[in-house]
Amino acid sequence: MLEKLKEEVLEANLELPKRGLVNHTWGNVSGIDREKGLVVIKPSGVPYNELNIESLVVLDYDGNVIEGNLKPSSDAMTHLVLYKAFKEIGGIVHTHSPWATSWAQACKSIPPLGAAHAEYFYGNIPCTRKLNEKEIKGDYAAETGRVIVETLSGVNPLYMPAVLVSNHGPFTWGKTPMDAVNMADVLEVVAMAAYRTYTLTPAIRPIDTVLIETNFAKKHENFQKSL
Amino acid sequence: MLEKLKEEVLEANLELPKRGLVNHTWGNVSGIDREKGLVVIKPSGVPYNELNIESLVVLDYDGNVIEGNLKPSSDAMTHLVLYKAFKEIGGIVHTHSPWATSWAQACKSIPPLGAAHAEYFYGNIPCTRKLNEKEIKGDYAAETGRVIVETLSGVNPLYMPAVLVSNHGPFTWGKTPMDAVNMADVLEVVAMAAYRTYTLTPAIRPIDTVLIETNFAKKHENFQKSL
Amino acid sequence: MLEKLKEEVLEANLELPKRGLVNHTWGNVSGIDREKGLVVIKPSGVPYNELNIESLVVLDYDGNVIEGNLKPSSDAMTHLVLYKAFKEIGGIVHTHSPWATSWAQACKSIPPLGAAHAEYFYGNIPCTRKLNEKEIKGDYAAETGRVIVETLSGVNPLYMPAVLVSNHGPFTWGKTPMDAVNMADVLEVVAMAAYRTYTLTPAIRPIDTVLIETNFAKKHENFQKSL
Amino acid sequence: MLEKLKEEVLEANLELPKRGLVNHTWGNVSGIDREKGLVVIKPSGVPYNELNIESLVVLDYDGNVIEGNLKPSSDAMTHLVLYKAFKEIGGIVHTHSPWATSWAQACKSIPPLGAAHAEYFYGNIPCTRKLNEKEIKGDYAAETGRVIVETLSGVNPLYMPAVLVSNHGPFTWGKTPMDAVNMADVLEVVAMAAYRTYTLTPAIRPIDTVLIETNFAKKHENFQKSL
Repeated sequence: MLEKLKEEVLEANLELPKRGLVNHTWGNVSGIDREKGLVVIKPSGVPYNELNIESLVVLDYDGNVIEGNLKPSSDAMTHLVLYKAFKEIGGIVHTHSPWATSWAQACKSIPPLGAAHAEYFYGNIPCTRKLNEKEIKGDYAAETGRVIVETLSGVNPLYMPAVLVSNHGPFTWGKTPMDAVNMADVLEVVAMAAYRTYTLTPAIRPIDTVLIETNFAKKHENFQKSL
Repeated sequence: MLEKLKEEVLEANLELPKRGLVNHTWGNVSGIDREKGLVVIKPSGVPYNELNIESLVVLDYDGNVIEGNLKPSSDAMTHLVLYKAFKEIGGIVHTHSPWATSWAQACKSIPPLGAAHAEYFYGNIPCTRKLNEKEIKGDYAAETGRVIVETLSGVNPLYMPAVLVSNHGPFTWGKTPMDAVNMADVLEVVAMAAYRTYTLTPAIRPIDTVLIETNFAKKHENFQKSL
Repeated sequence: MLEKLKEEVLEANLELPKRGLVNHTWGNVSGIDREKGLVVIKPSGVPYNELNIESLVVLDYDGNVIEGNLKPSSDAMTHLVLYKAFKEIGGIVHTHSPWATSWAQACKSIPPLGAAHAEYFYGNIPCTRKLNEKEIKGDYAAETGRVIVETLSGVNPLYMPAVLVSNHGPFTWGKTPMDAVNMADVLEVVAMAAYRTYTLTPAIRPIDTVLIETNFAKKHENFQKSL
Repeated sequence: MLEKLKEEVLEANLELPKRGLVNHTWGNVSGIDREKGLVVIKPSGVPYNELNIESLVVLDYDGNVIEGNLKPSSDAMTHLVLYKAFKEIGGIVHTHSPWATSWAQACKSIPPLGAAHAEYFYGNIPCTRKLNEKEIKGDYAAETGRVIVETLSGVNPLYMPAVLVSNHGPFTWGKTPMDAVNMADVLEVVAMAAYRTYTLTPAIRPIDTVLIETNFAKKHENFQKSL
């Protein structure tokens, strides 16, 4: 079942350590089959060098395990909430990549400071509000998904393919699992440059909207129309 | 004698340079056989690429060399003090890993700023007070152990498996020598992210206790009961 | 056509990822044949590991494609403006190299703070003014070239072989494409040291002119005469 | 002539790029034969991967080339001044290693902030005063040596085997060329940790003298006597 999607999800997961985006077992990629309504996700706590097709877990939208012998990632409910809210996306990545996590821990959005940021992210890469006590004690993973959705309210998730979760780390997404990995990778480079820019010049202002639009249009062909 | 423990201690020592946690000969791992009351530790000043089973040193609780032709690590008395105070632990690591050492040199505890910290460390990773002149001129290594024990007073050492020694560097521990290495590794990643978070936002506050508890419980199965 | 120049441009492009100066497809090198009035440049969006002689694009001074099946780099017009203005140069590099980009995003020139800087760059490595809305909405790439030329007004481009474009990143040049790559590489090292110097001591002053001159003369044999 | 010393000097030079202490051709190692009064040094501008025994240059104390077809390093006069002033030393290294250079560019001494520093360097690693215009325009390399000697006035150079030259970079030394390389390497690690400590806590104070003494004595057997 879902052999092609499983291969994509496996390959995308294995990219995370190759690109220096994860330490230990911290991080996971999923992919969705929209027609079947099923999600393939990394199992919990399995080291990347032991990961294979058989270890992947298949879930339905409610988090029931449809296939697989291992526990799904503890972040699985976050992924499911995002798939339900963002119909345009086909893959999701969660990491604790060092630079993006530093911004998430600082509870700060990453302002657009340069052309590279603007080609991929249309404006501030937002950081969520903090979860409240009830949310943390409740279904923590699902609430994490909900606060991401709340943060992106009214925004096309393919125009802002990343959100930082306060005191936690980044989630990114794309049309495919590998697209989501690429966004996690670009986010890390952007977060690094933004950290250094900000520590050089804490009063730095975001770049002008027109500069964002011009650069964003380079990588998003139908952007002009869609505004 | 203690062949299995020696192999564990050797393997754990060799992990330190592989994971980028030591420069030169700075750093050491030990392990304990609680039944026999014996500790196996790295010898002093031996480069990691020359380390082997035969070069390891076996000590009793008082620091007497029971087996081995080389001098034990100059930090051996620190390890012995910790083994006597913390009955739950089976392995200890000392490094001068760069990020954790920066906090130790700054005489600052590492505040919990994110989920990754909270999964492994229950609260502030504390930095000891400075040793006084009498302690430094006395049995410096043993006093280093005593100030670590003083700093963790009343705390389960498996809930706070790391302490920063002021103006020196980190010690970590775990149930086994390799667990202690894993903690040294996680500590380094946590210390790096905390440095960047703090330099982005010096007024950053520690995360809420409920967020610490929720994340800590993920990796510590019986945590709920033990509180 | 232009086989030797194409080989130089290919080799120079391939150096960028080897030296850690580019992520993804961000960055490009060109070279010029002044006699024929033709420029060879990297195509747009081609990953470095798929780049070969056949994929390179040949342009005339007006940006017409004279040879090649792929689209030229979206920065091509910037290169052409620079070749027209700076008759002394034979190769140009654009990167988003992390340290130089941090200064460009901060809209700050890199002051001369040490001997290494002064051996290669005669004074401040300047950052351009911001482009205005008309320039951004107009021929953005050409305007980027024009603001670089404006910034270097009255300066020998071989004495200042780098400019930072505000909110974007660095351009460097030299007598050959590989010289331009070397400047991009030196710039990155200089930008890194300057960042750390500046964050240690924000009140740091540029070094004295006499120290710049002495060091610059080491690498530029006829410098004394040309002043 | 001096075959053994040449091999030591070659090997020590080749260590610099291996340990990440040099970029490009920036950096050089020399060694001295005190009986013959001759110094072996790296030639100027030769890339490390082309360096061999034949390319090394032999100088007398006045800088005359006794053997070798290439120009000696442009820093050669600095080395010679140091050999004349510091009778105890047998090898010298100059680098632009990134962390130490950042302190040198900031014109700041590196304060002793931890045990690792204190094991190798007895107190502040001093930064020289700036050279004045007359010195820079005169015999710049020799004056660089003289200001290092002035800075260490009254200090045993084996107790402080490194000096930062203002607006330039570090020089280190030791009993042999490889000892000098080891000091350059330790200096870099110490400079990195000190930068991070200082940026975390700009008000940080140097560690107590007694802590310096205790740690320094670990690596310097006759230290107690010599004070």
